[in-house]
Amino acid sequence: MNHFMEPRSVAIIGISRRSGPGSYNLMENMLHYGFKGKIFPVNLEAREILGFQAYPSIGEVGQQVDLAIITLPRELVVQQVKECVASGVKAVIVVGQGFADADDRGKALQHEMVSIAKKNGMRILGPNTLGVVNNFHHFTTSFMPLHKEKAPIGMICQSGLFFVGARNFTEKIGKGIDIGNACDIGFADCLAYLGEDPDIEIITVHMEGLEHPKEFLSLASRVAREKPIIVFKTGQSAAGARAAASHSGSMAGHYDIYRVALKQAGLLFLENDGRMRDAVRTLLSQPLLQGKRIAVITITGAGGIVASDALERNGLELARLSGETIGTLARLSPEWMPLGNPLDIWPAVMNHEMQEVYGQALEAVLADPGVDGVLCISVALDMEKFGFLDVSECLNRAASKEQQKPVVAWLYGPGKEEIGAKLEERKRISAYGTIEAAAWSLSILRERQQFLEKTPVP
Amino acid sequence: MNHFMEPRSVAIIGISRRSGPGSYNLMENMLHYGFKGKIFPVNLEAREILGFQAYPSIGEVGQQVDLAIITLPRELVVQQVKECVASGVKAVIVVGQGFADADDRGKALQHEMVSIAKKNGMRILGPNTLGVVNNFHHFTTSFMPLHKEKAPIGMICQSGLFFVGARNFTEKIGKGIDIGNACDIGFADCLAYLGEDPDIEIITVHMEGLEHPKEFLSLASRVAREKPIIVFKTGQSAAGARAAASHSGSMAGHYDIYRVALKQAGLLFLENDGRMRDAVRTLLSQPLLQGKRIAVITITGAGGIVASDALERNGLELARLSGETIGTLARLSPEWMPLGNPLDIWPAVMNHEMQEVYGQALEAVLADPGVDGVLCISVALDMEKFGFLDVSECLNRAASKEQQKPVVAWLYGPGKEEIGAKLEERKRISAYGTIEAAAWSLSILRERQQFLEKTPVP
Repeated sequence: MNHFMEPRSVAIIGISRRSGPGSYNLMENMLHYGFKGKIFPVNLEAREILGFQAYPSIGEVGQQVDLAIITLPRELVVQQVKECVASGVKAVIVVGQGFADADDRGKALQHEMVSIAKKNGMRILGPNTLGVVNNFHHFTTSFMPLHKEKAPIGMICQSGLFFVGARNFTEKIGKGIDIGNACDIGFADCLAYLGEDPDIEIITVHMEGLEHPKEFLSLASRVAREKPIIVFKTGQSAAGARAAASHSGSMAGHYDIYRVALKQAGLLFLENDGRMRDAVRTLLSQPLLQGKRIAVITITGAGGIVASDALERNGLELARLSGETIGTLARLSPEWMPLGNPLDIWPAVMNHEMQEVYGQALEAVLADPGVDGVLCISVALDMEKFGFLDVSECLNRAASKEQQKPVVAWLYGPGKEEIGAKLEERKRISAYGTIEAAAWSLSILRERQQFLEKTPVP
Repeated sequence: MNHFMEPRSVAIIGISRRSGPGSYNLMENMLHYGFKGKIFPVNLEAREILGFQAYPSIGEVGQQVDLAIITLPRELVVQQVKECVASGVKAVIVVGQGFADADDRGKALQHEMVSIAKKNGMRILGPNTLGVVNNFHHFTTSFMPLHKEKAPIGMICQSGLFFVGARNFTEKIGKGIDIGNACDIGFADCLAYLGEDPDIEIITVHMEGLEHPKEFLSLASRVAREKPIIVFKTGQSAAGARAAASHSGSMAGHYDIYRVALKQAGLLFLENDGRMRDAVRTLLSQPLLQGKRIAVITITGAGGIVASDALERNGLELARLSGETIGTLARLSPEWMPLGNPLDIWPAVMNHEMQEVYGQALEAVLADPGVDGVLCISVALDMEKFGFLDVSECLNRAASKEQQKPVVAWLYGPGKEEIGAKLEERKRISAYGTIEAAAWSLSILRERQQFLEKTPVP
């Protein structure tokens, strides 16, 4: 995989002289990305492309090429693969569509190029792919613009959707591999690479189909002991499975079998497209959940009920708070206030400073041996006028005293984003869009902890 | 309800002289809101509060009072309710906590004040409530800051959470009633009011428990024929039901019975706290869905598969596109491209202008008699450099030619918010945070259509 991810020299076969908006010129994108290795544009007609000497064929480059990227119509690809083999190219990315994702002719072409490569020990990524992104190496083969963040997040996917839409799925990507039709390089190759990569702490996977499930699952259960792996498997419905066959040529069927097998291997399995970002954020910043007893601290009784429902739906339960914890809040609350879990601190807030009450409450529940994790609910108003209700400072102070229990939060009101960002600044507390998402995120911390307990490192 | 929602004169009993940050002074908030009616502060010691003449008791106001708001500790409330009766006050809001939401003493106090009011034909809202908000009358009794938007959205809730957190639940509220413990004014009173209110087009409900289900359900099924009603019922879990009992004193049990009964009455039932905003936006801007056949147009094959899964999960199906529709796209696509539904237009986009292709595709599927609604998937990049990929203009132009079929969209990439806002500008297309949310939103348009078909207006 190093030839794909950290090449020292790259040939771009079939690169166009057109650049700028609408040209989808991957060489322009690569330069913009700051790639420091050698670049050899290959184009029959041009002498120079974007300031680099161009070659009429890969054979005439005359220097070692680690990676060749073929960006040509499908009928021209097999010939180029042959020439790459002849020129000693180590690895090839085939960008274009129209192979196993299309018709019988496409399937035959794909088959032919794989045979040639395998016979000669050359690896192929794709076809039907944006290729790779490696922000630790200032390298990408994508013709679509990406962000350049050195995040400890790896991505293996079968579509550029997850590169370009990173903000929506994983927030950031540090290294990514789009295996496209996966004619040669597949999930297992990429997982082995990212699993051993010290830059990567968490691995996300978009999967349409899986060619060699046994090999992948055995590898995955080993890697999952070291790093969380999150899988978004698509093709759940009959219609989706059909669509997958004509997208990446994948056999996507047997969704329920996938679910069971992947979960058993210790992977976190996502049911729809709304959860990957929360899963990544949570697993990167929160300690695991040692038990399922959650304390809910809330300034709204109604919010506490919503949280109780959400926790139970996600396999967690309300902790039984100790007499000492209840006592801390009882001293601040009116005598008629029934205190329990959810711990409704609003009556206390009506008579004391919000920050004092909330800070004490969080400190007390975190110190309570009957509590494994905490969900905090608070309000987020206009900071300028209602700064006295901003709990980000007091919650962080309280949470810093106990680092072993996850603390998640849900804020409501017009200042949700601003105060949420402050709350997350020290990476001790995570804030979520909904109470449901906060509860679900706690549940995956529990799921991972249970996997690690069940399968200790040998 | 008019005395609560559009009072001409308001007494505030127990209002404090403290104002500014942390005082939670509801009179200050009311003035800030621009209320134009008469305000009589009642305070034993003050002569003047916030520039208004203060009275030592409600009896000494000596003028007609439509609405009295009692903001005093619980032991003092019953006496004030008696004085309100004696002074001919029409309606009372009891703000404070510590009644049926607390202990036996609280239950007894609540019972007593209701008995007095009922005997004398006076109505009580609360206790344990922020009261009301009516943005069409510049009026609120809330001591927490709210937004002042004349939105056609009504809210009935049992917690101020839904007023203060409006951005997170309904985006906006035009009129809202927090029934709190619902000692007298209940869901049915509010629903009757909002049902007949010409300012309100959609009614949202947060429900912990329901005192008189038969009356409510019969009224709701009548109102639902005129306006969509969306219910978020909490207390689903055993823990949540227990928490509800100590929040608003509600009997929240039998969640499944609630679900069946409320859905049967034609109400849209939400399963968690993440969907109310999407439901409101969708029902306010999209036509209903006449059948369940959806066309998916996408620039990413992977996204099309995710959409196929999401549609099936939400009870919808992929439309079978007509030969004419497919032909339109075939003319723009490479000959090897297998075209169907999801309609993957990316290969066409590689050879033609995005806006031309996407506009033609949407126009074609909307004109297709086999299509009931459309889900569009596109990319949203930096507008300045990638304006040529911004589809907001061409999609709106195409969608304006057919007003009877819903068009929903999902965008991915860093420009999601900006281009999403442009896409929604003309209120013809709705954009969502996830593909799952887009598919679910189509499903509620179908659910409402089916309810209306089943129960025609008599």
